[in-house]
Order: sequence, then C-alpha cells, then structure tokens
Amino acid sequence: MEPVLSIDPRTGESRGQVAVEADAAAVDAAVRAAHGTLDALADRPLRAALLRAAADTVESRADDLIATADAETALGVPRLTGELARVAYQFRFFAGIVEDGSYLGVVIDQPDQAAVPPRPELRRWKVPLGAVAVFAASNFPFAFSVPGGDTASALAAGCPVVVKAHPDHPATSELAATAIRDAAEKVGLPADVLTLVHGRQAGVDLVRHPLISAVGFTGSIPGGRALFDLAAGRPEPIPFYGELGSLNPVLITERVAGERPDDIAAGLVASYTLGQGQFCTKPGLVLVPAGPSGDALVRAAAGAATAAAPGSLLDARMRDNFLAGFAARAALPGVRALATAAAAPTAQAPQAVRAGLLEVAAADLVSELLEECFGPVTVLVRYRDPAEAQAVLSGFGGNLTATLHADPDEPEAAAWLARLSRFAGRVIFGGWPTGVAVAPAMTHGGPYPATTSPTTSVGGTAIERWLRPVTFQTAPPALLPPELRG
Amino acid sequence: MEPVLSIDPRTGESRGQVAVEADAAAVDAAVRAAHGTLDALADRPLRAALLRAAADTVESRADDLIATADAETALGVPRLTGELARVAYQFRFFAGIVEDGSYLGVVIDQPDQAAVPPRPELRRWKVPLGAVAVFAASNFPFAFSVPGGDTASALAAGCPVVVKAHPDHPATSELAATAIRDAAEKVGLPADVLTLVHGRQAGVDLVRHPLISAVGFTGSIPGGRALFDLAAGRPEPIPFYGELGSLNPVLITERVAGERPDDIAAGLVASYTLGQGQFCTKPGLVLVPAGPSGDALVRAAAGAATAAAPGSLLDARMRDNFLAGFAARAALPGVRALATAAAAPTAQAPQAVRAGLLEVAAADLVSELLEECFGPVTVLVRYRDPAEAQAVLSGFGGNLTATLHADPDEPEAAAWLARLSRFAGRVIFGGWPTGVAVAPAMTHGGPYPATTSPTTSVGGTAIERWLRPVTFQTAPPALLPPELRG
Repeated sequence: MEPVLSIDPRTGESRGQVAVEADAAAVDAAVRAAHGTLDALADRPLRAALLRAAADTVESRADDLIATADAETALGVPRLTGELARVAYQFRFFAGIVEDGSYLGVVIDQPDQAAVPPRPELRRWKVPLGAVAVFAASNFPFAFSVPGGDTASALAAGCPVVVKAHPDHPATSELAATAIRDAAEKVGLPADVLTLVHGRQAGVDLVRHPLISAVGFTGSIPGGRALFDLAAGRPEPIPFYGELGSLNPVLITERVAGERPDDIAAGLVASYTLGQGQFCTKPGLVLVPAGPSGDALVRAAAGAATAAAPGSLLDARMRDNFLAGFAARAALPGVRALATAAAAPTAQAPQAVRAGLLEVAAADLVSELLEECFGPVTVLVRYRDPAEAQAVLSGFGGNLTATLHADPDEPEAAAWLARLSRFAGRVIFGGWPTGVAVAPAMTHGGPYPATTSPTTSVGGTAIERWLRPVTFQTAPPALLPPELRG
Repeated sequence: MEPVLSIDPRTGESRGQVAVEADAAAVDAAVRAAHGTLDALADRPLRAALLRAAADTVESRADDLIATADAETALGVPRLTGELARVAYQFRFFAGIVEDGSYLGVVIDQPDQAAVPPRPELRRWKVPLGAVAVFAASNFPFAFSVPGGDTASALAAGCPVVVKAHPDHPATSELAATAIRDAAEKVGLPADVLTLVHGRQAGVDLVRHPLISAVGFTGSIPGGRALFDLAAGRPEPIPFYGELGSLNPVLITERVAGERPDDIAAGLVASYTLGQGQFCTKPGLVLVPAGPSGDALVRAAAGAATAAAPGSLLDARMRDNFLAGFAARAALPGVRALATAAAAPTAQAPQAVRAGLLEVAAADLVSELLEECFGPVTVLVRYRDPAEAQAVLSGFGGNLTATLHADPDEPEAAAWLARLSRFAGRVIFGGWPTGVAVAPAMTHGGPYPATTSPTTSVGGTAIERWLRPVTFQTAPPALLPPELRG
C-alpha cells in the first residue's frame, strides 16, 4: 500500500503520512459503500438537514481545517478562512435549493385530446443519477475539493459521493470528509453518503467503476481529458463534468485605458496575483491598446507587479512548471518581461516565487501565449485598433470568463459583450474574473476546454448535472412521490 | 460521386436516383452554409415564424410527402398522415416555446453583500451551442428525420441544422428539407438554416467537422455508439444526444392478468405490431405470471398475433435481420414460438412478413432475449412470483420506457413504479409504450443505451440539449439583449 504524505509547500518537506493509496479493492469498497446509501438519500428533508449539518460541522471545526489546509497549501489563513465560510454558505445555499424543490423540474400535463398525437396525463420530475465521483482540485482545498461545490450539489441532488482526494492536501481532505460523514450520522443518515479515496490509479478505477454514474472534475487539461476519455470509453458511458482550463481574456478599450489607467492596472495585478495566480479564473491575457493611454496603464501594471508580495505555490511541480513556463514565454520573439517571475526565498518560505508580467504586440502573439500558465503571471497584448483586438479574440477556444473594461457609452460596448459571450460562460463588465459567487444566476463553465459539457459547476443550476428526467404516464397520483401528486 | 437510390421496400426495387453521396468537400460546404446562418437565427420572433412557416409548408405539401414516404418505407398512408400531422404540431409546439421564452432560463440576481463571497449583479440566460448535426432515423421518415423533433428543437434553440438523411427515405428527406428551406425564405431567413447530406461517410465527416457543436441521433446501438465515440474523441469533444435502443419491458401482475386477460393481450399485440414493430418504444419483453391467469392472457395474445396482418419492413436488411433474429431466439432452450415470424409474400408486397410471438420461463431467460429485435416480435417471460419478476427487472440496462399493468389497489403497485423508474425514462401505468406525446412533461430518453445522455429527444425540454448558459456580471442592462434587461 503506497503511503500518502502531507507536504508543506513552503519548505517542500513532508508533514508525515496521512493515509494509503486505495487499491482496486479499496476503491470498490468505497463505491459500494456510497452506492448503498442511495435509498437513504432519497429523503429530501433529510438531505437538506444533511447539508445544513455539514455547514455547521465544517464551521465548528474551522480552526483545525484551516490550520491543516494552510500547512498543506500555503494559501494563508485569511484566504482559507474566507474559503471555508464560502463552503458553509454553499452547503446552506444548496439546502435551500433542496427545500425549495424547483430543481426537480416538476411538470404535470393534463390529458389533451386535441394534441397530435393525443396527450395522455404525464407527470415529470428529475431523479438522481446514482453514486458519483468527485475529483478534488489542487487550488481550492475546500471550495472545489471534498466539501466543495461538486459534493454539495451532488448530495443536494440525492447522489452519494466518492471523492478522489488531491495529493496537495490529503490531511485536509481527511478532516473534511470526516466532518461531512459526521454530519450525516448526526441527522440519521449513513456516514457513507460520502467516502474518500487517495491515489492516481484510484481515480482511474473510480471513473471505470460500473456503479459510478457521473464524474465531477476540476483540474488540468491533460488530466481532465484523460479521465473524460475513460468516462466516454466505458461500456456504459457516463457524464463527465470537467472544468479543465481557461485563459480568461480581458479587453480594455482605448477610452477607459486613457480615463483610468491606474485603477485598471491595480485591479488587474490584484486579480492575477490573487492566491498566487492559482485561480482557474485568473486573467491570463489582457488586450491593452497600443499608444500613450495603454502605455500609462502598462507602466502602472509593471510597478504593481514588481511590488507584489512573493508567495509559495501549491507544490514543487507547480512551482517548477510556473518558472519554466514564464521563462519559455519570456524568451519568445517580441515578448518583453515587465516583471520577472523568479525564486524569492525567505526563511519561512524557501520555495516562494515572485510574480511576473509579460508584454507583446498583437502582431507577435503566438499560440504558446494562448496556453494557460498556472501561477502569478499574465500577458499584456498590445493592439493597434479594434479590428486587431477582434482578430485576437476570434482565435480563442472556450473560456470560463471574458472581461470587458469599456465605457458604457462607447458605441461598440454592446457588440464587444456579445462577442465575448460567444466563447465564454461568464462575461464581466468593468470588474475582474477572480471570485465566483455562489448564486442562482452564476455560470462557471464554458465551451471546451473550459468545461467538457455545457453546464456550470458553481451556482444553483450546478445541481442539474446530477439528475435525469423521468415521466410517469397515466399513473394514479396516489402511487407517485408527493411532489408529483399535485 | 456515389448515387443515392430510393428503394421500394415492398418489392425491393429501385425507384431511381435521388441525389449523390456528399464527399468531404460537400459536407464542408453544407456545414459552412448552415453555420453562416447562426446570426440570422438569433432573432427569436423570426425563429418562431420559421417554425410556424415550416408547419404550414409541410402541411401544404402533405400529399407529395406522404406518397413519397409511403413508397420508400411501406409504412402506409394512414400512419404517415398521422406522422406528418405530428410533425406540423411539433413545429408549432416549439414555436410556442420560443415565443414563451421560459426555455432561456433567465435568472437575474441582485447584488447581495451578505452572501459569501459577496454577490455582484448577475444576469444569466442560455445561448445556442452553434450549428448542429441531426441524423435521421429509419423508422420515422418525418417525426424523427429531416422535419422531426431534433430539427424542430434545434432550430427553436437558434441552432442551424445539417441533417444526415437516412438511406431508407432519401427522396422524402429531399422533399422535407426543401419544405423547411422554403419556409425559411418565406419568413426572410436564409434557406441554409437547414442543409442536407447523404451517405455514411458524410455522417462521419459531419460529426468530426470543427464547426459542428452538437449531434442528435436516433438509430441503432452499434451505429450510434460509433458516432458517439467520434464525437467524444474530437480535439474539442461535443455533446452527442443519441437514442440508441430499448427493450421497453412490461410487467403484468397476477391480479390484472386474471381480471383482464383478453384486453391486455389485445393491447399488447396491437402495440408490438404497430408500424410492423419498428418503434423504438415497442414492448419487447413482457413479464407475464405463470399459472392459469397468465395462461389465458398468453393464449389470447397468441391468437391475436397469429391474426395480425403481415406487412413490409423498412428495408431488405431489416427484414433479413428480423427473420434471422426471430429464428435464433426461437431456437434457444426453453423458448416456444406461439406465432412464427415468416415471409408472407403477396402480389403487392413480395417482401412482407408476419409477426412472431415467443414465450419462455423466467428461469430460462438468457441474455440473447434481452437484446432488442427490431420488427414485430415480443417475448413473453413467465414468472412464478414477484421476486422472480423483480430479479429479471434488476438485470436490465437503461430503457426508454417501462410499463406496469397492475390494479391501483395492489399493495406493491407503488413499489413497482419506483423500481421501473430506476432504469427507464418514462413509466407507463395501464397503457402501452408506443406513442410518444409531444408535450411539456414528456421524457423520451433513459439510462444508456436508451440514450447517451440524461436528456429527452421529445417534448418541451428537448430544446435544452442545444443550449449553454451564459452569465453577464455587472453589465449595464442597456448593453444586454432585451430578455436580460428586466
């Protein structure tokens, strides 16, 4: 049994063994245990109670969860405190959705002899898909991991969850899983509504398991695509809801660059260095006008980037990839480093790095610069006229977000918003893409590779991913669930 | 260029050349032409007008469409008259959905500083995925082909459609495509909102085309799975909404078998021989109690099956497969032929066949009998007690439908409905699965292999397959589409 170690990314040193990797038998046991709770989870009020209890439990264990997560991720106590509060809010948000019941999509059709063909009485709602697998993300040890949005929305839908822990925070994962399992027992549900496995091969075995009915994933394009291919290649293919990667382009018009260069530069640098640039919504490419107004913005951004505090990335591999990725991009023809990403060791954080900032003329933009570079760096692309900006945008694949900084009175503003919506799931006006609200109207998803399906992994409609419709035809209402008797 | 011939299935003879198979360049041209109409189709009132005009046009050309379809499919004028009326109804049904606008899923969140994290103003709706491919089915030359549900729902969503015609009715496909293209021009839209291609390789090229954003398919498991794999294996995978195959089991309780053996037998035989058994919802396996009440039902069914009128199948391959499939099943240990499927040539229809009916004890049920046999045959499975019936049902994969004949007062009736809903998308009480109403609450889909995704291809929510969500954050309402300004 391979040991699972907890690593301190500030020092690169092991904090000790947390668990062992799950072999095929352990994965099978975790899946069967979770699957066995499907009938118990069918009780809607009890499910809402579970979600509220999970919120309470993670809050009551916040100190331990946050300290452990900080030791494993170096994301810092303030950020992790906010992330845990988000998780508790999210559990209660989905409890409200379960109680409300609109998500069941109940539609009742009375018979209609005038329809062609004549319509019998039909009663439709949605039922859970079954047990689901959730892959935790590296960069959000709470909000996109064991107690995160995939887990909360799947449990809300009535689907038991088997989580594949991320190797960057196995101890946090164990604590969070225990918190949810304890919450289940507190409300009278089996603890196994959520089970946890560690290990890369365990993830593969999980996606292939015949009793797994869907997968939620947040992570890299190569890893996500490999698992997507496994899910699609099963004898019975299952939905794979993967969030894989996003460049999150920003377009700044000439007018606003001239009006508010310092504001926009400060906002941009704060956004792309937030959490050491380890957000899936980090603005990774910024279209800035050529000429004097753009120059002022670029100067301000370079100053802010150089002044940004160094920090540690989530693990040694990410640190190496970030520094190598920055160096490779900086060496491309026409690319200028306005701030240089580099090692910035301190006594407490010998693995820390400082942020980078790159600039290139739109004419020199090559495909390497359109690939996401995970970590604190962004690329300022200088465009000479709107047509050139438009040409850059039209070469983009799918994105989670796209952002417009424009004056609302600019004649082209509406057209830019429409264009950005063609390749992104969320279009931000005058703000920054980092920060994804847990809200009914949120979309956190976009055309491939942003996500592998036209759905959202954050917000109220994330629950729809774990459901399928069922229609009862001419069934006596007394024989149906209460929701369908109306 | 390979010629595309129209074949008369009653005689097996060619009616002449209709078109040529599309080579790669022709497929590319068809896709680009359709894709080029995306912006024009964004006009919602115009889209509703298109759908109403399409209904009018197919109705005004009904005689020609029906005569051509009958000559190519042998489905008969009465059935095809009903199917065309359904198609016109369906176009108008989706026009109403477009006008209503609820399908857009508009959600507007006001800012909320108390949310965690604080919530900015968010405005969400759904936008069309892009140009889509629709594969026509053999067995419904109108309702699941060029002018069918996939086409109507995709156009309603704002997605241009490239149809891959089915080789069993190429002339009908050409006429129907022209009707829709003419309807588009009548309302001021480009004719290319729908384009048509013929040929097996054209279908492959279509699924692989980078400008195709989703696929709708109705057909066999092998054909559908091959195309599903292509769609999932693209550099940018796309949703593949396939309806592949279904056994549509029926459970008859001992009590109702004893009460109404003749009624149920007559209903069953009418349902499984409807359209010569070429329905995706044909009841292909019927659990009938062992013992005297079941015996009476079986005797009545055997009589009705033997008396059923012979008819022609859709093509020679299906006829051969049906006769071979019947013979192979009838030869299995323990299987008894109550009516023997066989050639039944007449002067007008030298290729006609008569229906078959098989019986087997549950204990002798083998996997070959759980595979769909396209054509007029069903298998009566005799069970000794409810536990044995339950054991048979628990071995099933996904199905489009499952049907219960029980007395509403039977203590187990509700539990049977719940069990049937675990593997089927539509559960019918006291009726028959053939006949799928075009209605808001319809579900025509189910766990794999019934469909490849948890969606429906018939009914109001079929439109959801062709849409993706987009959220605008803090965007001035004046810059947004009217639907999002509220």
